[in-house]
Amino acid sequence: MAVLFQQITIIGVGLIGGSLARAARAKGLCAEFVGCGRDKAHLQQAIDLGVIDRFETDISRAVEKADLVVVGAPVGAMGAIFNQIKRCVREDAIITDVGSSKQSVVEDAVRAFGELPEGFVPGHPIAGTEKSGVAASFAELFENRCTILTPTASSSSWAIDKLSKLWKGVGAEVVCMDAAHHDEVLAATSHIPHVLAFALVDTLGRMQESKEIFKYAAGGFRDFTRIASSDPEMWRDICLHNSDAIVHVLQLFRKELDTLEEAIKEKDSDGIKTILQRAKHLRDTNVLV
Amino acid sequence: MAVLFQQITIIGVGLIGGSLARAARAKGLCAEFVGCGRDKAHLQQAIDLGVIDRFETDISRAVEKADLVVVGAPVGAMGAIFNQIKRCVREDAIITDVGSSKQSVVEDAVRAFGELPEGFVPGHPIAGTEKSGVAASFAELFENRCTILTPTASSSSWAIDKLSKLWKGVGAEVVCMDAAHHDEVLAATSHIPHVLAFALVDTLGRMQESKEIFKYAAGGFRDFTRIASSDPEMWRDICLHNSDAIVHVLQLFRKELDTLEEAIKEKDSDGIKTILQRAKHLRDTNVLV
Repeated sequence: MAVLFQQITIIGVGLIGGSLARAARAKGLCAEFVGCGRDKAHLQQAIDLGVIDRFETDISRAVEKADLVVVGAPVGAMGAIFNQIKRCVREDAIITDVGSSKQSVVEDAVRAFGELPEGFVPGHPIAGTEKSGVAASFAELFENRCTILTPTASSSSWAIDKLSKLWKGVGAEVVCMDAAHHDEVLAATSHIPHVLAFALVDTLGRMQESKEIFKYAAGGFRDFTRIASSDPEMWRDICLHNSDAIVHVLQLFRKELDTLEEAIKEKDSDGIKTILQRAKHLRDTNVLV
Repeated sequence: MAVLFQQITIIGVGLIGGSLARAARAKGLCAEFVGCGRDKAHLQQAIDLGVIDRFETDISRAVEKADLVVVGAPVGAMGAIFNQIKRCVREDAIITDVGSSKQSVVEDAVRAFGELPEGFVPGHPIAGTEKSGVAASFAELFENRCTILTPTASSSSWAIDKLSKLWKGVGAEVVCMDAAHHDEVLAATSHIPHVLAFALVDTLGRMQESKEIFKYAAGGFRDFTRIASSDPEMWRDICLHNSDAIVHVLQLFRKELDTLEEAIKEKDSDGIKTILQRAKHLRDTNVLV
């Protein structure tokens, strides 16, 4: 594929930023990858792993020549980073992020930039694992996955097109949608499952027999709770920054759980089976295995 | 290994019963495997797959010569099966089951047998997948897993020992515990995760954007909801037969979820992080990957 960018600067070279660099490098989509962050040892590791070519701990120096800036930090750090890059980023640079909440990122950008740059196009690749850090990154992470872009009213079409080409180039399908809609959809498919998994593991940990309980956990439990191994800081940020949508979907979930719990309490065989059958059918027909 | 049994009769040759037969055959633990059930085509498939040697649809004929009877049916069918086998099973036979609730199985046995046979030793291998049916069975299912036995006051030690040898022979660690304790532990590690996964998938299916929601589900969601693909009849039975323990652990879970939801609503950064960190630590240190 043709080179799209001369220099991609990734602020926060973790699982997602690192995987994007690996994939874009493998596909020849960019000439140079520059990492930026606070932890030198971590950035050196990213060089050693061949993920980035060099790093800067000074954010101005990191972004001043970049034609693409990817902010891969937890969503709670976006505002501070936008504030730091606003004076030193090139006027024709594309600025994007990979955060799991999108309205909060746009709000943070408005607060930092005032008028939003036309190269600013928020994004979110729907991919990841429960692991974090550059050591967990891999070039195939985005293959056959979706990347959602949530352009603002100021985003210009050239920036959207070029960023789309990058994501398509690393194997993702690209979809554009409204930031609020993104936040509701992701609350349902990603944020609520994480909240439930964290809450369940913590519940069992507080039970008297907790040591034993975990001992008898089978494969289903391992799968169900895998996401409770995710980075607590990243997920605290997501909970804080997509609070409204998460609380809204949680309320829908609670109503459903009330119905199912009532049916279990009342030993209402048909009531239980109806819900279980419907759920199995939905999952089997809608979710890729 | 030495042959333990001359004839094992498996009533309900599904994922668990089929896997036990495959594993016991592979280890040379039994001379003949007889299947029993209502669906001839399914039983013929079990023969074709080499899981059983022959089948009977008449339950009396199936069990009359067996020195081990394994009831692999959903827990809702246990009572009827015990009633059918009580007059034709050998006096020195071991009778066990693989059901996910144990108090209900003992109660059903008491209703059917009156005085419980000394060869009756309820059991539950903590192993499985979201799939069901003999086609999904495999000999390695129990390797490095636990099988819980819940002997009754009438169970004799020779029966417990011999049954333990079978489970150890197919690779499982064997643990004996009280039926009530089993039900509480399994409610926490298995039944509640299933209830939550079924409820979440059904919730999303009812949301307006449901088609789209499932489209943007990533790996975490797939893992989290895998168990919602499990057999609805089997899980309805478990919900009905372990209702008290499930409702009890659900109440503990709800309290925890209330706390986390309140913290999310109030944007209480420390409150959220405390729960998430504790859960991650618990999972990372207690659950095998």
